[in-house]
Amino acid sequence: MKTLEKPYVVGIDVGGQTAKIGVIDTRGSVLSQMAIRSDDTTDVDVFIGNLCGAVTKLCKSYGLKHIRGIGVGVPNGNYYHGTVENAVNLKWGGSKHIEFAKKMRHNIGIPVALTNDANAAAVGEMTYGVARGIRHFIMITLGTGVGSGIIIDGKVLYGHDGFAGELGHTTVVRKNGRPCNCGKKGCLETYTSAMGVARSAREILETTDRKSLLRNFPPASITSKDVFEAAMEGDEIAKEIFEFTGKMLGESFADFVAFSAPEAIVLFGGLTKAGDLLYNPIVKHMNNNLLELWKGKIKVLFSTLKESDAAILGASALAWEL
Amino acid sequence: MKTLEKPYVVGIDVGGQTAKIGVIDTRGSVLSQMAIRSDDTTDVDVFIGNLCGAVTKLCKSYGLKHIRGIGVGVPNGNYYHGTVENAVNLKWGGSKHIEFAKKMRHNIGIPVALTNDANAAAVGEMTYGVARGIRHFIMITLGTGVGSGIIIDGKVLYGHDGFAGELGHTTVVRKNGRPCNCGKKGCLETYTSAMGVARSAREILETTDRKSLLRNFPPASITSKDVFEAAMEGDEIAKEIFEFTGKMLGESFADFVAFSAPEAIVLFGGLTKAGDLLYNPIVKHMNNNLLELWKGKIKVLFSTLKESDAAILGASALAWEL
Repeated sequence: MKTLEKPYVVGIDVGGQTAKIGVIDTRGSVLSQMAIRSDDTTDVDVFIGNLCGAVTKLCKSYGLKHIRGIGVGVPNGNYYHGTVENAVNLKWGGSKHIEFAKKMRHNIGIPVALTNDANAAAVGEMTYGVARGIRHFIMITLGTGVGSGIIIDGKVLYGHDGFAGELGHTTVVRKNGRPCNCGKKGCLETYTSAMGVARSAREILETTDRKSLLRNFPPASITSKDVFEAAMEGDEIAKEIFEFTGKMLGESFADFVAFSAPEAIVLFGGLTKAGDLLYNPIVKHMNNNLLELWKGKIKVLFSTLKESDAAILGASALAWEL
Repeated sequence: MKTLEKPYVVGIDVGGQTAKIGVIDTRGSVLSQMAIRSDDTTDVDVFIGNLCGAVTKLCKSYGLKHIRGIGVGVPNGNYYHGTVENAVNLKWGGSKHIEFAKKMRHNIGIPVALTNDANAAAVGEMTYGVARGIRHFIMITLGTGVGSGIIIDGKVLYGHDGFAGELGHTTVVRKNGRPCNCGKKGCLETYTSAMGVARSAREILETTDRKSLLRNFPPASITSKDVFEAAMEGDEIAKEIFEFTGKMLGESFADFVAFSAPEAIVLFGGLTKAGDLLYNPIVKHMNNNLLELWKGKIKVLFSTLKESDAAILGASALAWEL
């Protein structure tokens, strides 16, 4: 067993299906990593028990006796209070107010800091990713849901209550919008998340007779990955779905730019694998909807950090501050 | 002639029709005030000559020999560069890049700082108005256009280029939206500015046969003030127009809250005279569109500063920093 003297922290990225855990050194290297399921219990205490068990196991397997602290990025996480509130995309997160950081600290005996998963990803990108040197940007995470972390002058925007940056729940369709898990209708998330893309596929297959490779799947089982793979094989409907998704994102981004005038919008998550299929319509529709003064000037960047590293690294940045 | 030893500054609020000038003392009292037209020339140098002439006259009439500096709030003003760019609502402002602060300083020989008019109003409200003690809020000015000034943790949000806070040009109607002076379609400003309210009146009068006091006016001459007065006399169409205007604002405010999680949204400008006619639909539709965690928690406040004082006082705050 190695005995390491240097300081280390743990960064955790909690998503709708998995929680990814990494041991990070002072240089921001992810030394060791593992994942556990986050959707196999509806009891938050069971999940926190599993998570703390995994952290302990990971540290032991790496020969670590001490870690400085744990930083957690989690949907609907509140930095000010260490709580998770109304996290509708988490199986155990529906409750109004979960004292997540406190529960975890009690379980594992190490200081825990917590923030929204997208805020964590934004900090990760700013410190180690494509947003290095950019002091004003908006991070958009395209996962099960759509999250956002807003960086103003090099700092996360938390707002008066710690919940700023819920851009996935801005309304993009006012009439007959798709119902969202949050209880509203027409939220950006319902059109541009991985689930939104799958939903677009089902809608178009159900309402037309057009041929598509996607007809090889039972409609209910179609995922955004299936749509991506069909698009890569040249399927017209699949390509249109990415065009539509990019349009919805680009139109919204123009409004976000009018708010905070960022230098860049940074995208992160599985959907970004679609590359130009998504990038081109985003840039086109964003510029079509920007005021003259911003046309052609706002960068759209896709994260180049290894999947999940941005959020793990960003969460770890919180732990160093503990 | 009085000779005053204490330090004074001048605050100027440039609007689409008039520019209001005030002499301000260190306690934030507007000691003397005057206004000139801002829409009687298309030549920016002529306007700046008129403005500097008026400042000199006002200071002389008050017996002031020295003023510390001049702060100007102007639509599309850029704090970083002292410029006015693409100000489509100003007769002399269509040019891409006007070195407004520099030109004024050359003309009058006193240091000049400049910002967006809505940012100036936000600073005025924060320092002297309803937003005292509120560190996170969004100022919305309902005038000829719709402006906004965003305050994050007690500071104006400028963004990477100085142009943050163009919320009047976020898109509220994606299909067949009203054309905006900015070249886009469906901007919030086209529905909720004073001009937008008049336009709503003309549209409803032209497309229905319903009775209304507003039919006493030639359609082209109807102003938001006419609509307000008709509503106060119980005119149904006029009341519906305020309901519609408040709905458009409230829906947009919900999206703004999702961005920066402000404690309050502060409204300013002639339309706020409509009071509950505007306030009630704003609050109702904002709450209908907010995430659960914010419902009923975000304040909507109407400015109580004397008309134009907020922007003059806010602009003067810039001058003290010179």
